[in-house]
Amino acid sequence: MGELSEAMHECASRVERMMSLLLPHPSGAEARLYEAMRYSALGGGKRLRPFIVSQSAGLFGVDPRCAIRVGAAVEFIHSYSLVHDDLPGMDNSDLRRGKPSCHTAFDEATAILVGDALQTLAFSVLAAEETHADAFVRCQLVAELARAAGHAGMCGGQMIDMRAETEELGIGAITRMQNMKTGRLFSFSAVSGAVLGRASRRHYQALQTYAQELGLAFQITDDLLDVTGDPELTGKPQGQDQQASKETFVSILGVDRARSQARILCEQAAKALELWGDSAHLLRELAYDVIDREA
Amino acid sequence: MGELSEAMHECASRVERMMSLLLPHPSGAEARLYEAMRYSALGGGKRLRPFIVSQSAGLFGVDPRCAIRVGAAVEFIHSYSLVHDDLPGMDNSDLRRGKPSCHTAFDEATAILVGDALQTLAFSVLAAEETHADAFVRCQLVAELARAAGHAGMCGGQMIDMRAETEELGIGAITRMQNMKTGRLFSFSAVSGAVLGRASRRHYQALQTYAQELGLAFQITDDLLDVTGDPELTGKPQGQDQQASKETFVSILGVDRARSQARILCEQAAKALELWGDSAHLLRELAYDVIDREA
Repeated sequence: MGELSEAMHECASRVERMMSLLLPHPSGAEARLYEAMRYSALGGGKRLRPFIVSQSAGLFGVDPRCAIRVGAAVEFIHSYSLVHDDLPGMDNSDLRRGKPSCHTAFDEATAILVGDALQTLAFSVLAAEETHADAFVRCQLVAELARAAGHAGMCGGQMIDMRAETEELGIGAITRMQNMKTGRLFSFSAVSGAVLGRASRRHYQALQTYAQELGLAFQITDDLLDVTGDPELTGKPQGQDQQASKETFVSILGVDRARSQARILCEQAAKALELWGDSAHLLRELAYDVIDREA
Repeated sequence: MGELSEAMHECASRVERMMSLLLPHPSGAEARLYEAMRYSALGGGKRLRPFIVSQSAGLFGVDPRCAIRVGAAVEFIHSYSLVHDDLPGMDNSDLRRGKPSCHTAFDEATAILVGDALQTLAFSVLAAEETHADAFVRCQLVAELARAAGHAGMCGGQMIDMRAETEELGIGAITRMQNMKTGRLFSFSAVSGAVLGRASRRHYQALQTYAQELGLAFQITDDLLDVTGDPELTGKPQGQDQQASKETFVSILGVDRARSQARILCEQAAKALELWGDSAHLLRELAYDVIDREA
């Protein structure tokens, strides 16, 4: 295993343990909710966002335990969004990460509440003293995560994405949508290290640039995998977007231009980290890994 | 108009203005989301929780603008919970406050996102510097609102409430459920004044007791209104709980015992405010108003 995948694995298991610690254990008349929260949040995913948090925090010598808590909070937000996106009223997906989605394994009402409660949990984790000794830092984390996840970020992006299934929006609107829907949470992950480390504006902005380019490259690659990916590896049937006649980077740019665009973004992401020289090498490698992945 | 209803009206319009200011204005490809957020959060309700925040803050000489922001945050949480409760997968209600519920006026996907984004907005408001100069106070507000709204509070209570439609839970579980589902948000509202005013533990606890008794009295009255209320005034058909064979305080205790129980709770609520003498007279009156209301 290369250094990057080893570091990602290591981080994923630490985040998993932290999430398990923060999630409630089934008991009482509401046990079903707790069980469904654990079912939806634990045991899956590459934990890409927490890895970015943790690498970013490492650049500023932040206590790794603080970074892991912030990583868990981001992942609670990401998990909640997947649970709600899968609902029959939204994307109506029966499967998630190869197992039944939350509303399929439990029921719709439970899945709605699971998403709601996971979102609340994310903010509760950030506000707790264990996340950072300085309350001002904790408030900044809450404020920035709310901006990334709320109406001007993830939720707004998902709203536009629903429209993209029936309307032609064009490359500008699609780029903005993807930046809101997934880019903002990547950005939060990357800058949270700077916030935890009370870094300068310059450092903060460099990480923001890194994450914006990375987020877009990530999404273009997702769109490419829908068209060119191996269903055995991606775990999803090929051509779902096309079947839904959904506008994507690939439907607009074509496979070749989309691929070269992803590579350019990735190089820009790597360049944004120049400030840190070799200390940022894993974040730099991650960018290339994101566009070269097969799933 | 009596002093109480005048004060409540005055507070409701201030909160309404603040909410309108904090909510996004429709623009961009995501305009539908913003429109639906405003539709769901504005123009309705007695704004009981913000009134409690504002009266509680008044006991400690807190800047009223801070209290109104906290009141708006609580109301965003309350509004989000109504939007999600009304969803087809949950209570499936077409009407809310006499107008089409969010998913009826818009669609299900939009309603899910509206709830999600209103919750995020609540935390974003609390974390902002305008809410309190001291970041430690803001963090405490975020942490306490999260506890009240999350899996061990409102969301957990709603989970149990779903079970109460098909299972017999008994008076203990029903009381616990109602305390989680609605009591905790009342409690947050009452203690938030003490948090904003950095009051002593003793003051904090007295307000907590007040809110717990008030919350339960409020819920028993809700159950009573379902059986004995005038549909013209409540805006809801009579006997909905009974039709759904739902276990309530009234189905367990009967009308007379439920009524006297509400009165006892109300007296205990008033008593918890003794510390403040006459300064708390509106909160005390509110308790009686809650059980004597007709809608």
